[in-house]
Amino acid sequence: MFNVDDLVLHERRNDVVTLWLNRPQQFNALSEEMLSALKEQLDLIASDSSIRCVVLAAKGNAFCAGHDLREMQQNQNTVFYQNLFRLCSDVMLRIQSLPVPVVARVQGVATAAGCQLVASCDLAVAAIEARFGVSGINLGLFCATPSVALTRNVSAKRAFEMLFTGRFIDAKTAVEWGLVNESVERDDLDIAVDVLTSAISSKSATAVRYGKSMIYRQQLMPVEDAYAYASEVMACNAMESDAIEGIGAFLDKRPAKIKR
Amino acid sequence: MFNVDDLVLHERRNDVVTLWLNRPQQFNALSEEMLSALKEQLDLIASDSSIRCVVLAAKGNAFCAGHDLREMQQNQNTVFYQNLFRLCSDVMLRIQSLPVPVVARVQGVATAAGCQLVASCDLAVAAIEARFGVSGINLGLFCATPSVALTRNVSAKRAFEMLFTGRFIDAKTAVEWGLVNESVERDDLDIAVDVLTSAISSKSATAVRYGKSMIYRQQLMPVEDAYAYASEVMACNAMESDAIEGIGAFLDKRPAKIKR
Amino acid sequence: MFNVDDLVLHERRNDVVTLWLNRPQQFNALSEEMLSALKEQLDLIASDSSIRCVVLAAKGNAFCAGHDLREMQQNQNTVFYQNLFRLCSDVMLRIQSLPVPVVARVQGVATAAGCQLVASCDLAVAAIEARFGVSGINLGLFCATPSVALTRNVSAKRAFEMLFTGRFIDAKTAVEWGLVNESVERDDLDIAVDVLTSAISSKSATAVRYGKSMIYRQQLMPVEDAYAYASEVMACNAMESDAIEGIGAFLDKRPAKIKR
Repeated sequence: MFNVDDLVLHERRNDVVTLWLNRPQQFNALSEEMLSALKEQLDLIASDSSIRCVVLAAKGNAFCAGHDLREMQQNQNTVFYQNLFRLCSDVMLRIQSLPVPVVARVQGVATAAGCQLVASCDLAVAAIEARFGVSGINLGLFCATPSVALTRNVSAKRAFEMLFTGRFIDAKTAVEWGLVNESVERDDLDIAVDVLTSAISSKSATAVRYGKSMIYRQQLMPVEDAYAYASEVMACNAMESDAIEGIGAFLDKRPAKIKR
Repeated sequence: MFNVDDLVLHERRNDVVTLWLNRPQQFNALSEEMLSALKEQLDLIASDSSIRCVVLAAKGNAFCAGHDLREMQQNQNTVFYQNLFRLCSDVMLRIQSLPVPVVARVQGVATAAGCQLVASCDLAVAAIEARFGVSGINLGLFCATPSVALTRNVSAKRAFEMLFTGRFIDAKTAVEWGLVNESVERDDLDIAVDVLTSAISSKSATAVRYGKSMIYRQQLMPVEDAYAYASEVMACNAMESDAIEGIGAFLDKRPAKIKR
Repeated sequence: MFNVDDLVLHERRNDVVTLWLNRPQQFNALSEEMLSALKEQLDLIASDSSIRCVVLAAKGNAFCAGHDLREMQQNQNTVFYQNLFRLCSDVMLRIQSLPVPVVARVQGVATAAGCQLVASCDLAVAAIEARFGVSGINLGLFCATPSVALTRNVSAKRAFEMLFTGRFIDAKTAVEWGLVNESVERDDLDIAVDVLTSAISSKSATAVRYGKSMIYRQQLMPVEDAYAYASEVMACNAMESDAIEGIGAFLDKRPAKIKR
């Protein structure tokens, strides 16, 4: 048995949990154990209704170098690879199905499945020295699973260029292309992440959870179905005490007493 | 019975109809009556083949503040809310199923369902002081139905940030993100809208209607089906007298005599 | 019988094939013969496993003016038009189903189906004087089939503006909107295309083909299905000798000996 705490550190401050990828010497490569640890941490968060927001961060200079190539080399068989990529996909999907928003805090390079992690988070803030690439193609391994997340974040020709040339983009370009929300000086990274997580955790927990539960789901639907579904969600949300109090307070021009 | 003219004003100039949201004291909030009036006006336009283009504009300083919170407070029950959000969704869908293009003329702040209105129009021009937000989250009510329109206009992380932090963006950012086509000085807003509506109403009415009828529909289809459908549409359009005359005039280097 | 070489020239340099649209006097208009020639050339490329990358280029000042209006005028019947637009759609789809990447080299104006060609290529580089429009609307013929490609490259309101006003955008705007990857001085166009094709043809042919085969397909799927599919593709790719060698070389810090 491995100790998950070694690979992914869990740090809680008020209602915000930061998960730290913690294999800095291996550039936080996503070994099978690392992915399992991340999955476990995400599941713990999913079942803790007191958590309001999650930050995905990384120790060391790199954010995440993608899969663990040494491990892949040592397990050269189809079944291992199938399980590995399924597990990895499962982790990515779990970020989006988590009941609360997840913010990537990208302090360094994010490569292949590392770039996919950023694309899979709901929000992302990057230090200006961060770089983003899906460069498996340089090693003869096309970033197929990362492309699923990337093409849902970035327009077609830009995603294609990154995937087929292995080109890295800098943080400023990542903002322009919509892969990242904001790029800031390295020293301002924690402040920028705090601003974002505070903005979210100051809102009604109920409303945020309604939102997270529906936002990706509605996007898969034809627009008419999406509206029918969203109308139901919004009618339910509007009957919650937080919304009743929030609207009442707004109309009375007084501060709302909502459940944080 | 209410008089729809009080809530939505209909102004016709040549082939272009401007619908004015006309509850300036309530920041043009979309009460049930307001939505019904808008729906009625859209239906009238849909059945009038002489109309070439529609402008959606608003009286007063705000473009539209979203739903009428006072009305929502006074009708705190699930059935009212379901009907309200369905009606609102219906209005939004009607803009896209209208046979002619709709241009939003955004002179001020567009909030929640007001921002959704802008996103639902085919085109949008904004004054530089206009601002855009889906800030229901600030009142404990996630902008679920607005998110349907917003996520179909703006990339994932940008939409997420607006929806979960309540952040407003200015007109310049709205242009960069693709929510709005153009931002101009307040004094130039009518000219900019005129340029756009004139460009459209100077084209063949038949061709414009073919376009509007197919553009959103094809986007819901897998690309191969979309091509099969678009090929049929284009073959029909090419057999219309306007296209025959337009192509003939072009080849003869003479002005075309097409039905405006 | 026509000689396809007259309409589309095939030029091979190492592993890269450039297809030249070769009706410069007709601004490379896509006559039925031109489309058939292009389709034939694409099919030849599809069956030649030694080709690594394709460039779509054009002789003369225009990249491509769209359909051949003279031919359309001379064949004014529904069946001809249906066949024409289906053939055109088929060519566009064939670019995306080709086993290798296709780079558009846009030296001049790309109009209607010409703009659609650019949108349908995987990558595009343009000279700064290139311009892009879907201006059929000016002739009474809405660019229905081009809209299928354009709306899958460019955000909704931008595509709508181009389609309904006939507005042309310059190369710089095309880059900002994601229709084109890069714009360069006319004199630097061949160098920029070379940089891109060299980047691609220096990678493992196997990995590139895995990528091209899956990238558009996964995008049509709901995200969970896309991940299941991409995981399978990536597991297969990882078992290929190129990937095994690529990863091994990377870990050993030596140059990889992969099949170019």
